[in-house]
Amino acid sequence: MRRLYSYFRSSASFRVRIALGFKGLPYEYVPVHLTKDGGEQFVPAFRALNPDALIPVLDDDGRVLTQSLAIIEYLDETHPEPPLLPRDALERAYVRAFALGIACEIHPLNNLRVLRYLVRQLGADDDAKNAWYRHWVEEGLASLEARVLAEGRSGRHVLGDTVTLADVVLVPQIFNARRFDCRLDHVPTLMRICERCLELAPFVEAQPESQPDAE
Amino acid sequence: MRRLYSYFRSSASFRVRIALGFKGLPYEYVPVHLTKDGGEQFVPAFRALNPDALIPVLDDDGRVLTQSLAIIEYLDETHPEPPLLPRDALERAYVRAFALGIACEIHPLNNLRVLRYLVRQLGADDDAKNAWYRHWVEEGLASLEARVLAEGRSGRHVLGDTVTLADVVLVPQIFNARRFDCRLDHVPTLMRICERCLELAPFVEAQPESQPDAE
Repeated sequence: MRRLYSYFRSSASFRVRIALGFKGLPYEYVPVHLTKDGGEQFVPAFRALNPDALIPVLDDDGRVLTQSLAIIEYLDETHPEPPLLPRDALERAYVRAFALGIACEIHPLNNLRVLRYLVRQLGADDDAKNAWYRHWVEEGLASLEARVLAEGRSGRHVLGDTVTLADVVLVPQIFNARRFDCRLDHVPTLMRICERCLELAPFVEAQPESQPDAE
Repeated sequence: MRRLYSYFRSSASFRVRIALGFKGLPYEYVPVHLTKDGGEQFVPAFRALNPDALIPVLDDDGRVLTQSLAIIEYLDETHPEPPLLPRDALERAYVRAFALGIACEIHPLNNLRVLRYLVRQLGADDDAKNAWYRHWVEEGLASLEARVLAEGRSGRHVLGDTVTLADVVLVPQIFNARRFDCRLDHVPTLMRICERCLELAPFVEAQPESQPDAE
């Protein structure tokens, strides 16, 4: 029995949903509402599963896994086909660095709890909060666009014409960027890659609006 | 020829220094001063190497690698002994999730550029900036302490008695925490693990004060 604790809007959950779909692995969707009643992630039953109070959590037949990138690497190791990481060590490093360029450099700054701290502790108003959000997204994506152009290794996807972990992490970040009206005209290569991904079922089926808890 | 672009205080560089030492791999240390003259990471020659303007960067005989965790996985794949990741997929996921619990949940919030944004754009004073820093460190480490206790899998190190990627990421974060006077008495297990690590040469030799650019 495979269960994914997820929230439709969570981009980290979105990454794992894409990976599960890409591998053709069925799962039960367990919604964890991050804002209702103070946040279902803080309920003791959920914290017992994950002390971080973060989603996604994957319960793989009783084995509880956290952190989206660790979950995806686990899925890739236990279900190698089709692969989400190339075989070559250098290409793996390139794909992982791209994914971390989003997972470490953009996404953590725009997490719900961080935005709340800005408002509650630092007194940021809506404009200041949105400017913060857009700043990290626009700057972070610009770096990745520059890298992709400098490397010249992209095709339909971030690395050549094959879906990798890099695409799996890119697409949810673009969804977040759109939701917060970030500028995206400065990253045309990334946008083209995102469009190509959205021609594929695992990406379409994993998108927020297709989830059972979508509002 | 192996070159590491590093700054003595950078905890992401510290991680890679530990990994290189643990694998017994010699390297040339290239200092990149993050604050002098507006930051050497913004110099065009460095940006050509890494458009993110972030360290560490590993130049492995002309192959340029970025993002500390991707670099360490690459080193572990190309120099498997001694290993920094366990063989078992579930244990690998556990170790990676612990490392990401620092690399995604704590460290990105306390990066130099983020602290600068707080001060320059949001008008945070020194007290507010330090409170922000300590908040994410203390809360993030508390989650990791809770996880380690709940799992009951730690010994001398995060997973049993063997050094893994989890320890490699933990120790630099504790150094950062000390530098900013964060509370650490609530994470005794993590502190004990850190002490055990600092009995080992690769950790001692990689610490900030032992680097050629230490001030």
